Amino acid sequence: MSKTVLIVYAHPEPTSLTRSFVSETIKTLKEHGHSVLESDLYGMNWKATFDENDFPCRINKDRIDFIQESKNAYTHKRQTHDIELEQRKLLAADAVVFHFPLWWFGMPAIMKDWIDRVYAYGFAYGYKDEGNRYRYGDGIFKNKRALLSVMVGGPAEDYSPRGINGSLDELLFPITHGTLFFPGFDVLPTHAVYGTGRLKTVEAEKALAAWRSRLEHLFNEAAIPFRRQNSGDYINNILADHIRSKETGLAIHSDT
Amino acid sequence: MSKTVLIVYAHPEPTSLTRSFVSETIKTLKEHGHSVLESDLYGMNWKATFDENDFPCRINKDRIDFIQESKNAYTHKRQTHDIELEQRKLLAADAVVFHFPLWWFGMPAIMKDWIDRVYAYGFAYGYKDEGNRYRYGDGIFKNKRALLSVMVGGPAEDYSPRGINGSLDELLFPITHGTLFFPGFDVLPTHAVYGTGRLKTVEAEKALAAWRSRLEHLFNEAAIPFRRQNSGDYINNILADHIRSKETGLAIHSDT
Repeated sequence: MSKTVLIVYAHPEPTSLTRSFVSETIKTLKEHGHSVLESDLYGMNWKATFDENDFPCRINKDRIDFIQESKNAYTHKRQTHDIELEQRKLLAADAVVFHFPLWWFGMPAIMKDWIDRVYAYGFAYGYKDEGNRYRYGDGIFKNKRALLSVMVGGPAEDYSPRGINGSLDELLFPITHGTLFFPGFDVLPTHAVYGTGRLKTVEAEKALAAWRSRLEHLFNEAAIPFRRQNSGDYINNILADHIRSKETGLAIHSDT
Repeated sequence: MSKTVLIVYAHPEPTSLTRSFVSETIKTLKEHGHSVLESDLYGMNWKATFDENDFPCRINKDRIDFIQESKNAYTHKRQTHDIELEQRKLLAADAVVFHFPLWWFGMPAIMKDWIDRVYAYGFAYGYKDEGNRYRYGDGIFKNKRALLSVMVGGPAEDYSPRGINGSLDELLFPITHGTLFFPGFDVLPTHAVYGTGRLKTVEAEKALAAWRSRLEHLFNEAAIPFRRQNSGDYINNILADHIRSKETGLAIHSDT
């Protein structure tokens, strides 16, 4: 069945590995009959600072309170055009794929800012103006899927479960769990390519082929089994004592 | 003894809790005879996108490779003035304090971009052009201290060791370990204030007093015991088998 996929990407160089992955995504999805929406953050010259200019009709002109202004702007449809447009793309999408190089163990700032600005109060948090009632598996993006495609300069070993950088999945937890699962996405396991600085053409081709196979299962692959807030696993937002008793660490928030 | 402290902060509202903490930091440090340098990212209108404009003298005008251009710009002193100035402040500082509100489980984008842009190749990574030889406890910021002061909207329980968001220390690991310990800083335990949206005046005063006490020990408090790359704990960048055998998770990278 034909679906709509939003691709959000952050790399200004058309011949970069990140962008060759973006091209592959567009091509593969179209071949499968899906519709593609794009947010080329560098190409759009995305405004990369969340500030007062994002609230053209302030409720308080003397003092900026981001949550209050975000709530007001979103609720009364007084957001800037660029933010509103991205929200519409998100609502239209059945899945969202993020393509970015790992910079200092996270997203490039321009993509972090896309989250900061587009994720309005009432939309991605404070959904239905109900505080934290709808989050972690429940929220505006429920039944949509999200997937990170990350280009990593360093070797895979450094990001392995006992690697010196910390495991990639845990380094990206603030993104996968905190920005994607939080507003309701089903988050697929991150797709990473390592050692991107030293990749030969033949290796890049192999990496693209592996990515193509991943994409073919975008709508039937199993999501990361993050625990849903409203599943009973948490009591007052703390993991219930009987689940992985006495354990700590980010891994306890997945039901694996 | 008089020291120099750089304060990097990201909040545009002068009456915000973040900024009242910044004011307290400046006041307290000056009272103790220290010199204060400031990077007010919103106030400076910090350029929040890392792009081709950061390399005024490109080695390759046809294709942008961030690492190559960063290395060239840093090595041949062809960086932009704003980046160079921040690097000079970092070199002059004995300690760096970062003040920011937690937005989507990380730094505001403008501060992430300060890292992305200021942390040049040859400076914060690829130190002495020796690849990954100097990192995690060894690097340009060796013998300097760094400390995060974070304003968190949600309640402390949600960020506790079994809290639904994940523990704050682990959510911030990409910053404390990945961007501060990596280039050599001794990183102090993060100072967090929770529930900032609902803080009453008297609670804010108490929070400021607690912060003042922290600051008084800025130069003698014990750092987070992150394991040093070159200490023998890692073999080929993997934690040695005999250390916390078979355990995984970000906590294994601290010697606690």
